[in-house]
Amino acid sequence: MEAYLHEHIPLSLAMETRVVEATSAGVTLGAPLEPNVNHRETAFGGSVAALAILAGWSLMHLLLGNEGIPAHTVIQTSEIRYLAPIAAPFEARARPPASAAWQRFLAALKRKGRGRVRLEVEVRSGGTVVATLEGAYVSFGRPHRRA
Amino acid sequence: MEAYLHEHIPLSLAMETRVVEATSAGVTLGAPLEPNVNHRETAFGGSVAALAILAGWSLMHLLLGNEGIPAHTVIQTSEIRYLAPIAAPFEARARPPASAAWQRFLAALKRKGRGRVRLEVEVRSGGTVVATLEGAYVSFGRPHRRA
Repeated sequence: MEAYLHEHIPLSLAMETRVVEATSAGVTLGAPLEPNVNHRETAFGGSVAALAILAGWSLMHLLLGNEGIPAHTVIQTSEIRYLAPIAAPFEARARPPASAAWQRFLAALKRKGRGRVRLEVEVRSGGTVVATLEGAYVSFGRPHRRA
Repeated sequence: MEAYLHEHIPLSLAMETRVVEATSAGVTLGAPLEPNVNHRETAFGGSVAALAILAGWSLMHLLLGNEGIPAHTVIQTSEIRYLAPIAAPFEARARPPASAAWQRFLAALKRKGRGRVRLEVEVRSGGTVVATLEGAYVSFGRPHRRA
């Protein structure tokens, strides 16, 4: 997954993003401070948002792959709260949605070729939650054709 | 301003951010597609968010400089809506807040050493609005000392 991100999303390479974990239980992406620093020697808010958005997108990509569904996913809205300055490497962890929400998403994707689901992403640094992001992702596939 | 951003926020250089306009009427930052592309050959949502956050921050920096107030600014929350895929260079324009909101912000900053204000940023590509961001920025200065 790391090679895929670096190849297709060059900003992920510039941010020195690495994949810490990528399973159906969650995707965690990490980034060092140096390429993501701001004028205060803490993490640039844009880098933090980008890492969190990418963690959510990567989880969607992984979960849809596990379901064997050919679909592509885009982010529709995201809301991020910055809780504390980040002065060390940081990690963004996206967790799967609740099962009922995921099943509704899959049903819409199969029926209409389009599904929408919300994901929560937590950003941690030095053992502390430093930001949270809630993102709405939309996946596009092929609608079911009736015979 | 462009040299300042590139030097202090390396991600802005990786994104090839340029300053299109920087006046008290607004700050517009531009970025080409190539370093900000995703797996679909459209702009990566994280890049779009980062450019918009940076436009707002740059406007705060400029407005505070114009007021002659030594303060530093951080982003507290941001909410972005992606309206359309971006398949060309894009620009983020941050507009100053309404005068009353700005005056309240300045008064709090002077009195308490801390002020908070909301900014709206519009992202355009090819003449169309492709995303909007609303960000809350917090500035920290030195509180007024009573004699």
